[in-house]
Order: sequence, then C-alpha cells, then structure tokens
Amino acid sequence: MSDLLRTRISSTPAMLAVFDDRALIAHALAFEAALARAEAAEGLISGVAADEIAAACAAMDIDPAALADEAALAGTLAIPLVKRLRAVLQGEAAAAAHKGATSQDLAETALMLQVVEAAKLLAADLSRTYTALFALAEKYAATPAIGRTLLQDALPIGFGLRLAQAASGIAAAARRLDAEIAANAKLQFGGAAGTRAGLSGKGDAIARRMAEGLGLAADAPWHARREGVAAIAASLGIVIGALGKLARDVSLLAQNAVGEAQEPLIAGRGGSSAMAHKRNPMGCQVALAAALRAPGLVAAILSGLPAEEERGLGGWQAEGPVLADLFLLAAGSAEAMAAVAEGLEVDEAAIARNLQAAAMGDDIGESAAIVSALIAQHRKG
Amino acid sequence: MSDLLRTRISSTPAMLAVFDDRALIAHALAFEAALARAEAAEGLISGVAADEIAAACAAMDIDPAALADEAALAGTLAIPLVKRLRAVLQGEAAAAAHKGATSQDLAETALMLQVVEAAKLLAADLSRTYTALFALAEKYAATPAIGRTLLQDALPIGFGLRLAQAASGIAAAARRLDAEIAANAKLQFGGAAGTRAGLSGKGDAIARRMAEGLGLAADAPWHARREGVAAIAASLGIVIGALGKLARDVSLLAQNAVGEAQEPLIAGRGGSSAMAHKRNPMGCQVALAAALRAPGLVAAILSGLPAEEERGLGGWQAEGPVLADLFLLAAGSAEAMAAVAEGLEVDEAAIARNLQAAAMGDDIGESAAIVSALIAQHRKG
Amino acid sequence: MSDLLRTRISSTPAMLAVFDDRALIAHALAFEAALARAEAAEGLISGVAADEIAAACAAMDIDPAALADEAALAGTLAIPLVKRLRAVLQGEAAAAAHKGATSQDLAETALMLQVVEAAKLLAADLSRTYTALFALAEKYAATPAIGRTLLQDALPIGFGLRLAQAASGIAAAARRLDAEIAANAKLQFGGAAGTRAGLSGKGDAIARRMAEGLGLAADAPWHARREGVAAIAASLGIVIGALGKLARDVSLLAQNAVGEAQEPLIAGRGGSSAMAHKRNPMGCQVALAAALRAPGLVAAILSGLPAEEERGLGGWQAEGPVLADLFLLAAGSAEAMAAVAEGLEVDEAAIARNLQAAAMGDDIGESAAIVSALIAQHRKG
Amino acid sequence: MSDLLRTRISSTPAMLAVFDDRALIAHALAFEAALARAEAAEGLISGVAADEIAAACAAMDIDPAALADEAALAGTLAIPLVKRLRAVLQGEAAAAAHKGATSQDLAETALMLQVVEAAKLLAADLSRTYTALFALAEKYAATPAIGRTLLQDALPIGFGLRLAQAASGIAAAARRLDAEIAANAKLQFGGAAGTRAGLSGKGDAIARRMAEGLGLAADAPWHARREGVAAIAASLGIVIGALGKLARDVSLLAQNAVGEAQEPLIAGRGGSSAMAHKRNPMGCQVALAAALRAPGLVAAILSGLPAEEERGLGGWQAEGPVLADLFLLAAGSAEAMAAVAEGLEVDEAAIARNLQAAAMGDDIGESAAIVSALIAQHRKG
Repeated sequence: MSDLLRTRISSTPAMLAVFDDRALIAHALAFEAALARAEAAEGLISGVAADEIAAACAAMDIDPAALADEAALAGTLAIPLVKRLRAVLQGEAAAAAHKGATSQDLAETALMLQVVEAAKLLAADLSRTYTALFALAEKYAATPAIGRTLLQDALPIGFGLRLAQAASGIAAAARRLDAEIAANAKLQFGGAAGTRAGLSGKGDAIARRMAEGLGLAADAPWHARREGVAAIAASLGIVIGALGKLARDVSLLAQNAVGEAQEPLIAGRGGSSAMAHKRNPMGCQVALAAALRAPGLVAAILSGLPAEEERGLGGWQAEGPVLADLFLLAAGSAEAMAAVAEGLEVDEAAIARNLQAAAMGDDIGESAAIVSALIAQHRKG
Repeated sequence: MSDLLRTRISSTPAMLAVFDDRALIAHALAFEAALARAEAAEGLISGVAADEIAAACAAMDIDPAALADEAALAGTLAIPLVKRLRAVLQGEAAAAAHKGATSQDLAETALMLQVVEAAKLLAADLSRTYTALFALAEKYAATPAIGRTLLQDALPIGFGLRLAQAASGIAAAARRLDAEIAANAKLQFGGAAGTRAGLSGKGDAIARRMAEGLGLAADAPWHARREGVAAIAASLGIVIGALGKLARDVSLLAQNAVGEAQEPLIAGRGGSSAMAHKRNPMGCQVALAAALRAPGLVAAILSGLPAEEERGLGGWQAEGPVLADLFLLAAGSAEAMAAVAEGLEVDEAAIARNLQAAAMGDDIGESAAIVSALIAQHRKG
Repeated sequence: MSDLLRTRISSTPAMLAVFDDRALIAHALAFEAALARAEAAEGLISGVAADEIAAACAAMDIDPAALADEAALAGTLAIPLVKRLRAVLQGEAAAAAHKGATSQDLAETALMLQVVEAAKLLAADLSRTYTALFALAEKYAATPAIGRTLLQDALPIGFGLRLAQAASGIAAAARRLDAEIAANAKLQFGGAAGTRAGLSGKGDAIARRMAEGLGLAADAPWHARREGVAAIAASLGIVIGALGKLARDVSLLAQNAVGEAQEPLIAGRGGSSAMAHKRNPMGCQVALAAALRAPGLVAAILSGLPAEEERGLGGWQAEGPVLADLFLLAAGSAEAMAAVAEGLEVDEAAIARNLQAAAMGDDIGESAAIVSALIAQHRKG
Repeated sequence: MSDLLRTRISSTPAMLAVFDDRALIAHALAFEAALARAEAAEGLISGVAADEIAAACAAMDIDPAALADEAALAGTLAIPLVKRLRAVLQGEAAAAAHKGATSQDLAETALMLQVVEAAKLLAADLSRTYTALFALAEKYAATPAIGRTLLQDALPIGFGLRLAQAASGIAAAARRLDAEIAANAKLQFGGAAGTRAGLSGKGDAIARRMAEGLGLAADAPWHARREGVAAIAASLGIVIGALGKLARDVSLLAQNAVGEAQEPLIAGRGGSSAMAHKRNPMGCQVALAAALRAPGLVAAILSGLPAEEERGLGGWQAEGPVLADLFLLAAGSAEAMAAVAEGLEVDEAAIARNLQAAAMGDDIGESAAIVSALIAQHRKG
C-alpha cells in the first residue's frame, strides 16, 4: 500500500523519508542497541550480550508491513519488534534485550530521533525563506507601494516593509521551534511505570549514557507530562502559520488585477488541466493548505495533555502520527515558500500603478527604518 | 516509502486500501472513461474516440510514486494523469480526452467514489457494534449496577442502560453519516470555472450520464460550495466520538478496582512489552485515540468553508487528505469497538459487589423500559 | 461586570438576549414549574403544591450575579436555584419541588429552550440572506464576468452563478440546522442517574407532559449520549462557514483593484479611525471572524463526546457555553451578511472591465441554466 | 445584559474583572493619554494639548453598552471612543488626540495591558498549585502505590512521583507562558498602515516613550505578524492542559472504587441537586472542562496567522475575544486546582490496599530520586 498521492502533494521526499517505516525501525533498533550498551557499561548485562544485541540490531532487516500488522494487533510497536530481536538472539542476550525498558520508552525515543532530524531539515528551508525575504525587503524598503488593511487600500508603505514583516514572523517562529526542540526532544527512559525499576539504581546513569549515544538530551522520565511534546507541536503550528502569512500576501499580490508580485515560473508547476494560460500560485497553495490543516493537529495534541496517570489511554498514542503530520506539512510549506521567496518576481511598474490609482501620495513614513530595525533584530536573534 | 507503522495502528487494511494510491488512480481513470462515454453518447466526441479512451483507461498501469512527484509539482493530480492518458492515445482520442473537465472535477469525483466505498465498509462495522451492544443491553437491562456521574457513584441503574445509551449514540451517528453520504457524495462536473462551458449546452446531460455510469448522484456543479463535504466530515467526527463514548465506558469499567467489564481476550492483543500480567484495553485505546484526533480534522474542513470564488486556494486542497484521515480513523475505531462489543466480558459478580459497596439499594427506576424504548426507537430508524 | 465590548462586536442584541442570565433563569424556573405541573397531573405531588411551585417560579426575581457565584461554587446552576425556590415555599411544596429531577435535567432543558429560540432568530437572518442572494443571482445570471480559481483569472462565468453557489450553500446549511434542531432539541428528564427513579413508574408520562408544556420534543433520557448536541454544533459551524464563503467572495470583489461589488453604505459603518477615505467591508469582517472561530468551538463539542458513564466530568459542562458561543457568532454573521446581501452594490462596468482585461471572451457556458437549477433545487427544499 | 451564569462557572471574579468592559475602556483611554504625552515630549503636539487630553482621559465616564453598540456598527472600538474623546476636547487638543495612531494600535495595546495583568493573576494560582504539589510529592515520594498505565494496574510507583510529574508539567508550562508574555506583550504603535507616517520621523521615539509610560515592551510595529499572539495563546493552552492532567489524575484517584485521594471538602462545593451523599470533584470538573475548550481556542488563533497584508480581515478581529477566553478558562482552572492541590486529601490506607490487591510487590525503583530530580530541576527554573 502507498499513500503518496495523498501525502506527497503537501510534503517533501526528504521529510517523508524521515517519517518512513524503515527510518522508524532503524531508530527503534538504535534505541535497543544503545540501551544494551549503556546497561553493559553500568554492569547490568554483560558486554558480550550487549555486543550481540547491538550486532543483531545492526543486521536485522524487518518487513514494515508485517511489523505494522502485528503492532496494530499488539497496540504498540515495541512488542513485535522486541519479539523479533529476541528471536535472533540466544541465551543471555535474548534475556538482556529491552531490559528495564517499556514500549513507551522505545516509541518516544524513536519519535524524538525523528523529530531532531525533521527539525534540522525544516530549519534549512525556513532559513532559505527568511534570508531571501529579508534581502528582498532591504531592496524594496523604500519603494512606495499602496498598503492595504482589511483588503482595502489604506496608505502608502515601503513595498519591502510587508516582506520584512512576513520574514520576521517566519524567523521568530523558526527560533521558537529550535528552542522548543532543544528543550524537549529528549530521551525517554523510565520503564514500565516510569520509575526505572529493575535497574539496580543505575537508571539515571544508563539514561545519560543512552542519551549521549543517541544524540539526545537526558532527563528524568517524562512519560506522564506531555507539555514538551505539546510545545513542539504548537511551535510547528506557528511556523506553518507564519509561512501561510507570506503565502496569503503573495497570492493576493499575484491576483491579475493587482499583479505586484508573482511566484517564479517553474517548469511543470502552476498550470491548469483546463486552462493553458493560467499561472497558479502553487507554492502558496501548498502553504495555505498546510496552514489550514495545522491548527486542528495542534489542537489534537493539546487535547491529549490531560493524560491518565503513568500512561494515558488514547491521548499518548495519538501524539506520534499527529506530530509527524505537522512536520510533513511544515516541510512541504517551507520548501514551497523557500522557492517562492527566492524567486519572487516583483513588478515595480504594477506597484507604482496601483499606488497612483489609490491617489494617496507616496509618504511611506518610517518604512525603511522599520525594515532595518526588523533585520537588525533578526540578526541579534 | 511506506507509512504503515504510523497509519496501520489506527486503521484497517480494508480502509487503507480504499484510500490507497492504486485505488485513487483507478477511480481517476474511471472518471475519464465515463466522461468520454457520456460525451460520445451526447455527440460531443466520436464513439470511436470514446472507446479508445475507455480502453486506454482500462489498460493503463501507472506508477504511483512517479505520478505523485509530478502531481506535487503541478499542484494537482489531473495534469500528469491526463498527460499520461493522452500520451497513449492518438489523433481525435488524444484531443477528446478530459474534454470540458477540469482538475477539480477529476479529483472530487474520484474522492467521492472513495467516500462511497469507505462509507459502506464503515457501516458494516458500526452495525456490528450497535447490534452487539443492543443485545447486551437487553440481556442486562434489569441487572442492578451502580450508576456513576462525574466519576462518582451516583444511584443504581440497569447495567444494560449504559450500553443501550452508547449503542443509541452510535446508531444515530451511523444514520446521520449515511444520510449525509447519500445527499452529498455526488459527481463533480463543472469544467474550468464551473460553468460547463465548451459542451454545446449538453453539460447537464453529460453529467447525468456520468453519474449513472459511476454510481454517484448527479447535481449542478458544487465546486464553490463545500458544505456537503463539511457535513460528511462532521458526521464522521460524530461517529468517531460516539464510538469513543463506548470506549471511555469500557475502559473505566475495566479498571482493576472496578472490573465490571473487559475487552475480550484476543491472541497478541493487549500485552505489554514490560509487564506480562497486563491486559490492556487496546480496542478502547484505538477508539479513544481516534476520538482525540477527529475533532481537529473536522475543524480543518470547517475552516476551509470560506473558499475563494470558483475554487479556493488552500482550503479545497486540504479537504481530500483530511477526509481520508477521518475515514481511516473511523474504520480503525469501528473495527476495534465491534470486536469489543461482540466479545465484551461482563462480570456480574463485580457489578453486584460494586453496587453493594455503594450502599444505595437497588432501585433502578425505569431502566429496563428505557432500554426497550431506545431499542424500539433504533429499529424504527 | 459586563463583556459587551468583547461580545457585541461579533453578535446581535437579540441573540445576546437569548443567552442572557435573566433568560436562562426564566427557562430554569419554567422547567421547575412544568415539572411540578406534570407530576401533579400524574398524581405524584398534589395539585396545590404544583400551583404553589408554579406561582413561586413566576414570582421569583433572582439576582444573576449572586446566583452565578453560588453556581460556580456548587459546580451547577441547579443547586442554588432550587435552594432559592425551596426557600420561598413551605411544607409539601418545598419538598415536592425538583422531585425526581437532577441538575443536568434542568441545565439541559433550559439550554434546549434557548437553542430553539436562538434557531428561530437565526433562521430569519439566514432566510433574508439567501433570498436576497438568489434574487441577485437571477438578475445577474447571464452577466458575463471573469471567473477566478486559485485567486487567478480562469474563464468567464455568469456573475450571478457565484452568488447562486454561495446562496445554495447557505440555504442548504440552514436546512441542515433546522433538521438537527427539530431532531435534537429535546426535553431532558432522567433524574440523578438517568433512570427516572423515584417516579413510581410515571417517568415517561411526566416527561411527555413536560415536553408538551415547554414546547420541546420528548424522548428517553439522553444524558449519556451527546451526539445530538454535537450535530447541532456542527450544523452551526457549517452555517457560519457558508456565510463566510459569501463574505470571502464579497471582500475579494470589493478590493479596490477589482471593484465588482461592495457592501452597502451604512451610516457609522466601515470607517477608519485613521483614514477617512476608507470603506471597509465590515459585514464581511464579522462573518470571516466568526468563520475563523467556529471550527475550534465545534471541535470542543466533538472532543466531549466520549463522556464518562452517566454524566461526564468536564465534557458535558463545556457544552452549554460553547453552544451559546456558536449561536452568538452565527447570529452576528447572519445579520451582517443579510445586510450585505440585501444591499450589495454591483458595479457592472467594473465587471465588464475586468472581463475584458482577462481577454478570454464571454462564453459563460451553462451559467444561467445552473443558476436556475440551483434556485429550483432550493425551492424544492 | 449579563452572561455570568455562562462565564462565572469556568472563571474567577478577578480574571473576569481584567477583561471587563470598564477595564478595557480604562486601558484604551490610558493609551490615548500616553500617546498624547509622548507626542508632546517629542514636540509633535503642544504640552497644553497633551495635558488636556490626559485630563479628559482620566475624567471620562463612558457607558460600555452604548459604546459597544457603536463599536459593533463601526467594526472597531477606536472610532466611537476617539469620537467621544474629541467631543469633550476643544481646538488643538481635539485635533491632536489619537494623532498618528490607528484602531489597531489602540485595540492591541489595550489588549496587551490586559494580558500582562491577566498573566500576573494567573501566575499566582499556578505557583500555589505546583508549590503545594511539589510539597505533597516530597512527602509521599517513597510511599509505595500502584502505578497505572492505559488505565490498568502496571507496577508500583512512589505515590509522590505521580504528583511530581503533574507539578513539573504545570511549572514548566507556567515558565513558558511567562517567557512568551515577556517576549510578546508589547506596545503596538504603527499608524494606519504600520509605517508610523505623519510623525515627522519621531515614531520610534514616541513608541519608546509610550511603552515606558504604559509598562509594556517597545518594538517595531508588529501589526502584520501575529506569531507572538499565537505563542501566548498556545502557552495558555499548554498551561490549561497541564492543569487538566492533574485534574484527570485526581478525579481517577477519587473514584469510589479507588479512593486514594480526594478534593478537599469546601462548603457549598461538590454537592448534587439529587444526591445528598455525593462528593463531586468540582475543581477537577472546572479544569477538565477548560482543557476540553482550550485546544479549539488555540486553533482559532493559529488559523488567523495567515493574515492579509497590513491588517487581516476576520483573523485579527478574532484574536482579542479568543485570547480573553483562554485567560478566563486558565484562571478558573488554576484557581480550582490550586485549592485542590493545597487541600488534597490523601488516603494512605487506600493506597496500601490497592497496591496489595495488585499483588506486584512494592519495588518503586528510583521513584524518590526522580521526585528529587524534578524538584531540583524546577528550582533551577
């Protein structure tokens, strides 16, 4: 089965790969290997067992479809995966695998490994977008254009001011996302009820070693407090919304009757199956569709916050796929708007024409100074 | 790429197949074939051309991944699909293919074909669920049990009354969904701007023929009014919520300290990767996770209602994948709760014990009569 | 305290009055009076007691602020209200008041009385809106205008076709709301745990009498199945979205560079505190703000569907205020768009100018026939 | 008109006062006074005019209901308010009032003044909540209790660990909210199109003076980038969800069959209109209802991010009332849960009994160390 026709139109191949089944399985096996190594280092299992587990994790080739069916039956990925792992091990190693861990530890750590990769991918396209926009904003900072409020001509602005505002919104959203990822993309390791039982008091030390091995931050178990995941989700929602703001403005500027800016021409993009003459704002379409879908996804994550006791029923299980959807949409939107920002075609004649039609002179106030201030503020971070 | 590990845990293979790439391509080609046949019947293209188009549609084998990449670039599935279709046709047939249609016609009709199939699948599991529940409700209509409000013991009820209320909610939600599907799963055929231009005034006749051929209802073009899609989405959200109500109650009854009912034992289901003794309410987990995710998906569809002019930018494009998500979640939830309802293990001793502990006697009022009334009401439809 | 500056801008005085404290108290007292009369008619309490209760309900003048403080403390309106009622009664009447009823019965019935009034108010403004729009659609059915998809010029349409599509969407949404109100705005009467205990088997008869007295439909207790309330909420969300579609189109048409239609001039409306020349689309603003807020409100109601057992904790309590918010927003939007539709200023010269600029001829296909079909469909209902 | 019966049950008198009409009017007049003083200091208007304006602002007594009706007509509060202000001024002062400002400047600055006050109120109740919880967590850190995952008995935990996790979630959410308020609750001052036109290049200096006078942070105009408001809203949603987590746990622990903890007895709270014996978890009810409503409100704010150009149509106008709703719900929830946390009745015998029934021994792993780590982490901030 495949669902690319539903997902690819709103995301990128690179981000789809981050949340692909094979990537998830690889992260899950990396978790088991890191666990074994850390437990061996702390003397809970033998070094030989750890080596055998790590070797098995590196060698295993698991069919995602069969695993998915079993995971659906079991209600968790960990059970069929650990069963497969143990089946290729013998003796002590088989018994030592997954020791002290629980399904949530594996699922959550694997998800956070995906989150960190996803955030890196996303940051690159966000940076492309605001960098290009700030450059355009600087170029057109003092170009008089009609400003519009409530979809009506208002007063003149520097054309670059609108771009600088959009860029500032995207840059600030990107910074917030980075900060929340840094604070909340952490190893999960608490065991069955989040107490790190059965680890001879070495739980904390094991967690630190695992975190280091996997490149994640360490922390006390956070199985029962979900506000970090919610903060990542909300930050993604804001990123998507900030990109949507740019898309809204570009699509309004690109209207035939306005014509002040247009998405760049890209071969194969923006045509119509019925109208050869059309030049559709397809990047904006991707970003606006994402901006429409993201708020409900964030709401779903927020709805799961009041989770039951040591592991919620329903809420926790909803987080993974919804967080993935948010990253997929963000990636599609960021890549689309990066291309739009980098190739934006500005029509100065149309800008001048519309300004003149508005008959409000060309006093753009402190537009240029505000553009400079926004850029300076951004550079300061 | 594959995302089964994310999607399969919350849905069913059958519903995933309905929204699979190959199914979508087949529906899209069926649209093109039906269009050609209808246009030939109305004299707009030759019968020979229609036969060639239909034959090509039946014979084509399209790689979904490549099509998805091109659709993502074009911003619409129709452009690369029609391009492929025309490439295997010659002369008049190549020119005649897709005549008078637009991307939205193809996308929307294909989606509605999926919707009709999906609804049929879903109805079967919903019927299993409420049928089993009503039978249990009848059996335990007069069994005194403690009723609980605000999570506190309240007054005695017939144990079957709680089940009958849950069943009535699910049955009513299923009826609403059926009615909205019947009213709103319609052929879309309006052409580039929804005027049925270029069809020599035969647009209405062609639409009727196509609808009949495809097994959908006919209507005037509805490209610019989306309240029918929104009603289907909202009805799905209510179905998912009504199933969630049952899951909430079963999971509360299954708590160790309560123990009045449990999900059936299913091999491979409900275990724990860390705790062999556990019997987790995995059916309820699926249903409650779906109930948490659905409201935000419905909200996304509602947010798209204020679409721009003859075809919105962003809102319209978000509908298809979100509607698919709702059906996928509904299917997972309905199948899970059908199994729960059909195999629910009721512990009458625990029911009696909890009632006694509450020390409020055993006056269950008109519980049994209300159960009968709810069943009668359901049968009446 | 007062919150008119926050609420009045998005609603109407008439709808605010429906959900006003005094109205709610009056409905709650009407519930108690109807209950007493029905119980007397069925012989559960004496006619004298019922008369005294009804007289007290008619005479009581309750301070909403004090009642609200006590209701907040108690967690329910019924407790302080019934306490006040009993305090003005003596002997049998004091004991007979509220007999067999519970807080939810009172709260829910009062809410449904508000819902019925609110729906009536709303229907009037919706009817004004689609009636005016259909008339305009008929007038301009064959006026060639440029159609726009994805915010780009597409192909010519009849100008009236866009209006007819918007009108059809609103009319269909209004019909759905009416149907859901008729089906689901019902008396609630189930007692403490929904069993109608303590009523000597007369619960059903009492419920029928109460329903008749209060002008609501009768039904078995529905305390534990919330899909009816959810359906009303979703229908309101669709109404608000359909009005938003009209607002979106009018606001786009009213852009200075487009100028094809404008909201009517209303004294005091649409000005700017900084720009005397502006003519802001204030009706559209109200409708679009409502369309932005409604989806999340519907989502909240859907989120509450998986309610716990005989009365949920949190979900149920959220329904009343959220349903009220939906009606308040719908009323503001409908009144605003009724005025816009009735006074819409269409500029045929601008329409012609924009069509000519698009240089795509003036073939509007079957636009006029589609307008006629949509109007006929609406009249059929 | 009054809506206390709808709003008071979910909020507090103090927070309702922050968002009361009179408070809003006072803030709006404070904005006009601060503007006049700053413009006088920068030489744009005379000191005499500024004094007259400030005196008028201090003296005006405006009827909120009449103002609300006019604001609803105008579509903005600023127009009728500035009109009233000018009406009590003469000559230069009348002309100087509101100079260079626009409706959005006034509305947004007044909102941010409310936000700062609201956040202060809220922080106090959040601090009460997590302080009390951390103390309880410390006390019961090593008290063996059964841990529960997926609503099933899992393995033993320290009873205090569950409380510490809930407290950590609330404390982290409170810190995030504080940080977002500090970063984003800023003066808005940009004039009609956000360019600070008509201020002789003194816009930035005036903005700094105003910000200082009003106790807000200064910044470039942010009229067209809304991610700061969205971040405040999302942070509130997370706070409400984190409080909901505590409420969920307490309400599950308070079930009759579990009985491990209960809300404190408060006179007049938690009774039932039908069942005198009941002790309902009313604080949890308030918090859980808030947690159900908040996600949709956050979604609404996120949906408005793609705002049109220099001031959006609909999205921007929706922000104020929705942000107010979030603060109102957060306040109700925080006050309720502060009382619950401070008075939580823990039943050690029930804890021991339930643990024994689970028959899984009493190995609570590193529970106590994790509690200490969470408390230390919190103190570090």
